[in-house]
Amino acid sequence: METPEQDAAHMARAVELAGHGHGSTSPNPLVGCVVLDAAGQVAGEGFHAYAGGPHAEVAALARAGERARGGTAYVTLEPCDHTGRTGPCSRALLDAGVARVVIAVTDPNPKAAGGAARLRAHGVSVTSGVLAGAAERGNEEWLTYARLGRSHVTWKFAATLDGRSAAEDGTSQWITSPEARADVHRMRAAADAIVAGIGTVLADDPGLTARVRDGSGRTPLRVVIDTEGHTPQHARVLDDKAPTLVAVAEDARTPLKADLLRLPRHEGGLDLGALLRELAAREVVGVFLEGGPTLAGSFVRQGLADRVLAYVAPALLGSGRAALGAAGVGTIDDVHRLTFDDFSLIGPDLRLIARPAHPSSREQ
Amino acid sequence: METPEQDAAHMARAVELAGHGHGSTSPNPLVGCVVLDAAGQVAGEGFHAYAGGPHAEVAALARAGERARGGTAYVTLEPCDHTGRTGPCSRALLDAGVARVVIAVTDPNPKAAGGAARLRAHGVSVTSGVLAGAAERGNEEWLTYARLGRSHVTWKFAATLDGRSAAEDGTSQWITSPEARADVHRMRAAADAIVAGIGTVLADDPGLTARVRDGSGRTPLRVVIDTEGHTPQHARVLDDKAPTLVAVAEDARTPLKADLLRLPRHEGGLDLGALLRELAAREVVGVFLEGGPTLAGSFVRQGLADRVLAYVAPALLGSGRAALGAAGVGTIDDVHRLTFDDFSLIGPDLRLIARPAHPSSREQ
Repeated sequence: METPEQDAAHMARAVELAGHGHGSTSPNPLVGCVVLDAAGQVAGEGFHAYAGGPHAEVAALARAGERARGGTAYVTLEPCDHTGRTGPCSRALLDAGVARVVIAVTDPNPKAAGGAARLRAHGVSVTSGVLAGAAERGNEEWLTYARLGRSHVTWKFAATLDGRSAAEDGTSQWITSPEARADVHRMRAAADAIVAGIGTVLADDPGLTARVRDGSGRTPLRVVIDTEGHTPQHARVLDDKAPTLVAVAEDARTPLKADLLRLPRHEGGLDLGALLRELAAREVVGVFLEGGPTLAGSFVRQGLADRVLAYVAPALLGSGRAALGAAGVGTIDDVHRLTFDDFSLIGPDLRLIARPAHPSSREQ
Repeated sequence: METPEQDAAHMARAVELAGHGHGSTSPNPLVGCVVLDAAGQVAGEGFHAYAGGPHAEVAALARAGERARGGTAYVTLEPCDHTGRTGPCSRALLDAGVARVVIAVTDPNPKAAGGAARLRAHGVSVTSGVLAGAAERGNEEWLTYARLGRSHVTWKFAATLDGRSAAEDGTSQWITSPEARADVHRMRAAADAIVAGIGTVLADDPGLTARVRDGSGRTPLRVVIDTEGHTPQHARVLDDKAPTLVAVAEDARTPLKADLLRLPRHEGGLDLGALLRELAAREVVGVFLEGGPTLAGSFVRQGLADRVLAYVAPALLGSGRAALGAAGVGTIDDVHRLTFDDFSLIGPDLRLIARPAHPSSREQ
């Protein structure tokens, strides 16, 4: 049996492998797997590359072949126990004769869970929770989706060091560098849907399209939050480059010819939790929220900004539009606390990734 | 003779040595020196530790002793050629029999310059400009002071990720962590003067004192920018813990009993360039500017914020006081462009250091 240090090292590799599927597995999770032979040597590696394709365990076992017998499998997520587009991975591990399975995160999906129990019932030694933090982080979008039954939200903004995203006269092109804007495109392309508010549509008429890098031809769904249905019929977001959903109030009177999603009103806008549940029902795992400040403030206020992706330009404006609008904070004790996960220079700009200090989706 | 790579490596060490004097050499520059013997081996190192103490060259030569003869001296700043509190370093290098002197930055101080010329006149080989960028950066406060005849300004602010330094009701304690606040104390203690606006004095009644770490008992001068002379006589900034200067308009009618500095009016406030020249005349090399946003906006607008020191908390407010007030920017083309010099985590917060992309003090 492997030592805890060996367990951590092999699981770290499995987490790394899982990341190779980033942006193309939706609505499935990212999963990586490392299979050792009975002597503790790596016999096979695999990851889930795209929905409908082989699961990570199956890919790794195929590479390991007969060497898997009596060996150990490291999996970033509990092996599934149900037959979906592919057979259950618990069965595949048993068939291969694996003696021990090490799991990072248990599967919150009731349809797929039970894999660990089945393995134990058949005499396989199962260890759970190894490197769970890193595996959680790598799979946070899907875990939010599976645990809460709603899409995960990444709020992206670009601002100056003093937190402004446009000058006094409304001009904002460009606060950040070409390098930062290219990075936004990459991040956006990994999302299943891109969300913007009607204010942004009216002000900037953005296309909200993304170049998707997985070669599948998949284009993220475009979603406009437009309580009263004021999107102009000729808006670029309604062109035929990608499907578009316009979220309006249940009782909105709008002549708009578009795919409308009617939602309950909430605090002068729409019920964004209901929006995210509706999107999850359409297999939207990750949402990319792009401006404006008012809509971002609503997401933050409703506790629905799961990740903040900030591009901070080394520049000062001193006036003009703030990056974030009213977010329900009146006094300092109610500030929305985050933690920084990552920071790096992208060209001359700083990219910061943060998440709520007490996220609702994290396992307790 | 040393190769360019050897020159760069020894000068890098000299720049590192110079930094050891940070916060205690004012009004003198930071200077580091490395002396090699004739065989190219390090024979002595030194730095300028405090005003009135030995210059870096003298300290390094003392350690090198006779080994300096025929050797090379690396100095981050051109050796002085005048007798101040200590004798000229050019003379000390000649007396020690040094054959070659490598200089990073030439001395902009007309009183002290001429060292390189004297050395050359006596047959010493002189190389200038080696690692000039790094040496400039390490000595930026003094170089601004010497070149422009005014104090160098570090503007410090603490804000949330969305650029706010107080909540809607004015509360701000605490946006940043104890670690970040301790770091502010360290940075502040290296300054010769601490500057705040009357708005901050009236709102927060800060003491504006700093614990100075050089053991000299020196306390930074406190400066209040108070155009009309509205500082309350009982304000903490007027206590006896440190000297205080209250900058008021030439024609201000104020009953204030304090050390007043009368300055010309400028754009509804005071002429801040005149302030910095007056402070330089009092041997204030580095100024630490602490809020509020209005005063900071004036410094930025007048091109007088030489370094920005930002503590960004992983938190969102969405409303409340902005970190920076109006800075004279109406449209994006007039944005004040900076470059990031450094970023690091201080506890949970991010500390960013930036400077103008086109500083007026840099050698062209």
